[in-house]
Amino acid sequence: MLITNIIRACSTKRLLYEVKLANQTVKKIKPPMHKDKPLKMEDLTKVYLTPLPDSPYVRPFRFNYVQGGKDKNWDMLAVHDSVAIIVFNTTKNVLVFVKQFRPAVYFNCIPPGEREAGEIDTSKYPASLGITLEMCAGIVDKNKSLQEIAKEEVLEECGYDVPLKELLQIASYRAGVGVQGSLQTLFYCEVTDDMKIGKGGGVEDEIIEVVEKTIPEVEKWISGPGPLNTPPSCLFALMWFLRHKADKYRNFRLKPSKTACSEAIPVNVDVFAKTDL
Amino acid sequence: MLITNIIRACSTKRLLYEVKLANQTVKKIKPPMHKDKPLKMEDLTKVYLTPLPDSPYVRPFRFNYVQGGKDKNWDMLAVHDSVAIIVFNTTKNVLVFVKQFRPAVYFNCIPPGEREAGEIDTSKYPASLGITLEMCAGIVDKNKSLQEIAKEEVLEECGYDVPLKELLQIASYRAGVGVQGSLQTLFYCEVTDDMKIGKGGGVEDEIIEVVEKTIPEVEKWISGPGPLNTPPSCLFALMWFLRHKADKYRNFRLKPSKTACSEAIPVNVDVFAKTDL
Repeated sequence: MLITNIIRACSTKRLLYEVKLANQTVKKIKPPMHKDKPLKMEDLTKVYLTPLPDSPYVRPFRFNYVQGGKDKNWDMLAVHDSVAIIVFNTTKNVLVFVKQFRPAVYFNCIPPGEREAGEIDTSKYPASLGITLEMCAGIVDKNKSLQEIAKEEVLEECGYDVPLKELLQIASYRAGVGVQGSLQTLFYCEVTDDMKIGKGGGVEDEIIEVVEKTIPEVEKWISGPGPLNTPPSCLFALMWFLRHKADKYRNFRLKPSKTACSEAIPVNVDVFAKTDL
Repeated sequence: MLITNIIRACSTKRLLYEVKLANQTVKKIKPPMHKDKPLKMEDLTKVYLTPLPDSPYVRPFRFNYVQGGKDKNWDMLAVHDSVAIIVFNTTKNVLVFVKQFRPAVYFNCIPPGEREAGEIDTSKYPASLGITLEMCAGIVDKNKSLQEIAKEEVLEECGYDVPLKELLQIASYRAGVGVQGSLQTLFYCEVTDDMKIGKGGGVEDEIIEVVEKTIPEVEKWISGPGPLNTPPSCLFALMWFLRHKADKYRNFRLKPSKTACSEAIPVNVDVFAKTDL
């Protein structure tokens, strides 16, 4: 019963999203609004911590076992499996990322001594500390194929309507082996500007910004000293892209035709990073 | 106070380890024993779940904030930052991994409907489901440099006494952006058989097996269909190694001298995987 309740509870928010999404035309997807102004992920105030009440999202429990004849236990969480998608736009020759405010990252940027002082000083610790650059991703909590869920996430977060057959399954791995252990499956897809039928940005209260980066920008970014505000799954995904796909598109951009100059064509990208995201 | 307690509590187990380690000579590191037999990570029985009591390891809380004028909250965990180390043995020309039983991975391999039936049937769901292949790694919970902590982990888990200056810092990233958000710093080091002064295998009750894989074995493994029982940080680390280091050692192995044959020299590795770890 314990675990059934966890699974059910975790699904509630997602199911609400699905109902909302089913009732709207995808063309109408807009960034979340508040009093007729777009919501800004940098506009952060009134941050404070409280003990965890009965939560629909984080359900910890203790795993008890006997290993090699010794009693042991391990404290962990029940979480959903997930998908992540490398999205490459072949019209603009850019990788498509999502940028969002992650409370868990923000929290870890604040020195331990200052986390406990009641309300956190957001003028001293701006929201940008917790803004990450990630692959488009989502949890697996419905009776659909992984491809179908990946397709939905690319639409909801990035605005592209990508055909199912274009979603290539790359690898599955354990998203965190310590307390989480869920399976994440990574896909790759190529999209064109013609497939863009919405702005992306997520559903409900999500504030997600779609960010495009050229291959040289990505190479420069992952070579920097960091710390990079990104998960290792995004770094693995980028290394996979650079190993298996980048050369084809790098050459294409450098030599679009025999008569064109050999310099890279400037691409209209959203250069996002003031900090080393 | 809440967070101070979390940090203190999380450190307790680790501090015990340090005291134990300080009282022993590194040469004496042995695999954990039970009734004069080495403990086997595959010997798993009596698995059951219970609600989480007050835990020193998993301390969840709620993060409250106002973003874009809207009240929000996020449920998450306080965890330590960590280090992970790519270890390459240049005597044997192998990458050095650690293999261990991870309860969170095992749990996620059991269908949700069967997780709730009291004791889990370990004959139906063997421990191998939860055995992962990872980089050597450890948490940052003491007043030492990241390099010093990385050096200690390489010794405790893999048995190599690597000089500090040989630990090259590669990248830092966010180990899980959902509920965790802590910083993981990745190092690379090259070791020789001469530096091996212990068996590794961890400290206290840890059952960690040191596993060696050749470069072709690694390339084959990460190209497989999976699912791979490994975290994305390990996959990123391997891709980094293949991109920046592998060619040097692959060529060395293929052509050890001008007179040798061009075939790869067989390496005495512990081939670990019956399943697709």
